[in-house]
Amino acid sequence: MTTVREAAIELFRERGMTTIFGNPGSTELPMLGAFPEDFRYVLGLQEAVAVGMADGFAQASGNVTHVNLHTAPGVGNGVGAIFNARANKAPLLVTAGQQARSLITMQANLTNRDAVEVPKPFVKWSHEPPRAADVPFALAQAIHHATLPPAGPAFVSIPMDDWLAEIEPVDFSRQIARRVGGRARPDETRLAALAERLRAARSPVFVAGPDIDASGGWDAAIELAERQRLPVWASPATGGGRIGFPEDHPAFQGVLPPAVGPLAELLAGHDLVLVAGSSVFPYYPNIPGDFLADGTELVAITSDPDEAARAPIGDAIVADVSLTLRALLDQLSEDSQRDPPAPRDPAPAPEEGHPLPPGAVHATLAELFPKDGIVVLESPSSTPALRSQLRLSSPGSYYFSASGGLGFGLSASLGVQLAQPSRQVVCVLGEGSAQYAITAFWTAAAYNIPIKFLVLRNHEYSILKWFSALESVTGAPGLDLPGLDVAATARSYGVPGEQVSTREELQGALAQALAEEGPRLVQVDVSPGMALV
Amino acid sequence: MTTVREAAIELFRERGMTTIFGNPGSTELPMLGAFPEDFRYVLGLQEAVAVGMADGFAQASGNVTHVNLHTAPGVGNGVGAIFNARANKAPLLVTAGQQARSLITMQANLTNRDAVEVPKPFVKWSHEPPRAADVPFALAQAIHHATLPPAGPAFVSIPMDDWLAEIEPVDFSRQIARRVGGRARPDETRLAALAERLRAARSPVFVAGPDIDASGGWDAAIELAERQRLPVWASPATGGGRIGFPEDHPAFQGVLPPAVGPLAELLAGHDLVLVAGSSVFPYYPNIPGDFLADGTELVAITSDPDEAARAPIGDAIVADVSLTLRALLDQLSEDSQRDPPAPRDPAPAPEEGHPLPPGAVHATLAELFPKDGIVVLESPSSTPALRSQLRLSSPGSYYFSASGGLGFGLSASLGVQLAQPSRQVVCVLGEGSAQYAITAFWTAAAYNIPIKFLVLRNHEYSILKWFSALESVTGAPGLDLPGLDVAATARSYGVPGEQVSTREELQGALAQALAEEGPRLVQVDVSPGMALV
Repeated sequence: MTTVREAAIELFRERGMTTIFGNPGSTELPMLGAFPEDFRYVLGLQEAVAVGMADGFAQASGNVTHVNLHTAPGVGNGVGAIFNARANKAPLLVTAGQQARSLITMQANLTNRDAVEVPKPFVKWSHEPPRAADVPFALAQAIHHATLPPAGPAFVSIPMDDWLAEIEPVDFSRQIARRVGGRARPDETRLAALAERLRAARSPVFVAGPDIDASGGWDAAIELAERQRLPVWASPATGGGRIGFPEDHPAFQGVLPPAVGPLAELLAGHDLVLVAGSSVFPYYPNIPGDFLADGTELVAITSDPDEAARAPIGDAIVADVSLTLRALLDQLSEDSQRDPPAPRDPAPAPEEGHPLPPGAVHATLAELFPKDGIVVLESPSSTPALRSQLRLSSPGSYYFSASGGLGFGLSASLGVQLAQPSRQVVCVLGEGSAQYAITAFWTAAAYNIPIKFLVLRNHEYSILKWFSALESVTGAPGLDLPGLDVAATARSYGVPGEQVSTREELQGALAQALAEEGPRLVQVDVSPGMALV
Repeated sequence: MTTVREAAIELFRERGMTTIFGNPGSTELPMLGAFPEDFRYVLGLQEAVAVGMADGFAQASGNVTHVNLHTAPGVGNGVGAIFNARANKAPLLVTAGQQARSLITMQANLTNRDAVEVPKPFVKWSHEPPRAADVPFALAQAIHHATLPPAGPAFVSIPMDDWLAEIEPVDFSRQIARRVGGRARPDETRLAALAERLRAARSPVFVAGPDIDASGGWDAAIELAERQRLPVWASPATGGGRIGFPEDHPAFQGVLPPAVGPLAELLAGHDLVLVAGSSVFPYYPNIPGDFLADGTELVAITSDPDEAARAPIGDAIVADVSLTLRALLDQLSEDSQRDPPAPRDPAPAPEEGHPLPPGAVHATLAELFPKDGIVVLESPSSTPALRSQLRLSSPGSYYFSASGGLGFGLSASLGVQLAQPSRQVVCVLGEGSAQYAITAFWTAAAYNIPIKFLVLRNHEYSILKWFSALESVTGAPGLDLPGLDVAATARSYGVPGEQVSTREELQGALAQALAEEGPRLVQVDVSPGMALV
């Protein structure tokens, strides 16, 4: 006989899930007891932080990642971050404690009544095993659900007295041994038809989405663009949780605008739009117009059936993005004779000014950015400027909340750094965004995670003021943020932080932060408003 | 014609809902535009804080309170706090923005797909109106649902383009005029039977729950105890979101233990337990035993049908607690000749020590506690000590998260202070608890809310170490909290905070904080472990 807990630990170890993120409560203690020496527990001080860290770790490691939450209120605090993880397609096993079985029916305190409902509709699967003996099987199932495409969070609620129950190890060993894979090649007929459409197109264009990076299709995307002479756009930044194409490549044209009308206008003149690894499209501001100009057709490659079904335009192929790009290359044996696209302009020289324009901050970051560095970004009003200035060009070098939900950046950046210890992570935040997961600074300090934070402070929710103007809204309260000092707050949690104003100060402070061990933070005052370049 | 927004503002004004708590996003801007001058918007920097503030405001004002959240990720971040509000029976109108109707079906970014599912199962009602014209009606309905007993949160998701749609004001004026009430007296037969049981009981005991305070039954409870010579216990602290009886009253015996076996043992010898305004019971640690000793009967008075149905023992009467106590007094025309209960001992002299034991901190607080003061408490390992030392004895003087969820205390305390500006609120927190809603310090400073914070720091999750011992769990990670300094974090948000160690320092700092204007914080190092007295 073995206990449920021992079986679960064996499963986690077998799957490489030896880092567990969490925020514990009484209902989780039986799982956490006798914690194995080869496991690592990373504590977040609020559940949104724990889930966000796991999201970053899952994406940057490519492995399903376990986050353990407290019963009802703990899962509740994490629901926003679970929504983000779903949009980011991060494979997460989310477990939560539950009252002891004998106390559930009377709803003793901290019973998670209707536990499986709490994280819905943002998890792929949600289950509370009806018997203790089913817990390891439920965990194994949840891991399969989390990893099968499209990846995402799966949830298991576990009564606290289940962990010490005994089961037959032989029953469970078959579960541990199961391997389940869901990466699919498209059928040959559709593939051949797509190849033919691309071959025949007069002026095709390629839109690179986040799942190119997540699926390992980076090199295939470059080869396709080069051999087919395709100009390449990134899918709109709003839903671009990762970059799918090197942004310093001569074929790269920029980031698509996120509204219906402007996006269609930008693509007008192309007869075929090939989208890979993105929804069509992560539209946000409501600027109506045609979805595509007359004469423009669209085909999307996505591993997500929902993305394929809900796109308002174009055809779609549901299959693994990387395998499909590679298969398409195999079909396109001859390189195109089309003219190569003209490269875009270099990053514009940033404006100067006091306070510094965000573009000047990102230009400074670009000057100092370490080789193989990674950006985790949550600075809504300067996202376009960062993309314009930094031009990241390695796989796995950019993480952004594809959902639009805040709190991802600060917490996920820690998970990314833990998953990629040999690459320097720079987490770029607005001072408003930082607040949604501010206690992550404690985790950075307590675990001495060598991440560098760059905080742009403009004393307002600039993105909301920009939206207000777009929507002709005036007189809305709650858009100003006087008196925030993220450097001071970070210091209070043990992360050395300093405040700078000029470009020279920023250069010095950022260079020093990058040179030093351990977590560091630089906060810079910037001019308010949306920064496009 | 009037717009949906104008109709909603009229409804809110008519219902006295002119304070709106929130954290805005783009989908909420059309509601917040042209914000009326007689309304007040209180900004929280994360949604859990906004909901928690509204929870405290609703409970302390007795009026339904509006909290406005961002679409999916915003509601998601608030789900834990909504769970708390449900347990606290706080009447909340929770509204959230939603994508424009034209962009929902394609799931443009920030679409709250299945919006009504997100806050379930923790809201009483969840709705997204199918047409813009239905929004005011849905808001009116949600307000009725939130306030009908048992009170709790109700949710409405509102597409952002609905606010400027035009409706006929005459249709809506009938909704605004509707008054809906659900406070009920029990039927006479049951009431007479209960009076007879009480009259005939040899040794009855009264258990006072939080809904005595919430229903306005404070004086009736005192009169019942005095005239019937009832010893009075508070329902277990775990679910005691408010106190239902003056804790310095000679009839008051203390707080019931929260586990099955010990609770039954304590009540053994009584032939009748009369519970008012509490579930039976908010059990927490799993210490099995009989629910009641042989010879003990129980009757509960609750306005919550669910509490009545799920109690594992005793009879129940579903009716308003205050009206029922008053009606019961009317039936009991003659005072009992039973011996009055012996008063309990005065608060024990606190132990001394370095670091200070939590009981010594709470004794100091008791010495300095302002007349008519209010405690909002979230210091799990020192809850019994505070109740033992402070002996609060006015209605509306104690707020605690009845759910067991953390993050309530710090945020709710601001709402309580805003709702009760003439009474001094002291928010008592553990340094771990404070982290779940830490950005509330910014709101305290930005709105100059004159609340005083008392933080007990023991560098660990003491309550979890206590539970670990109870559950024979050893070797669990994540239970230590080195390096937190809530005073420094509060200062970083603009709340003056200081750190003290000795009892003299604490007395001085607390007296000074209470004497000064504006928010102040005192952090005191305490000895670890559960503090019972």
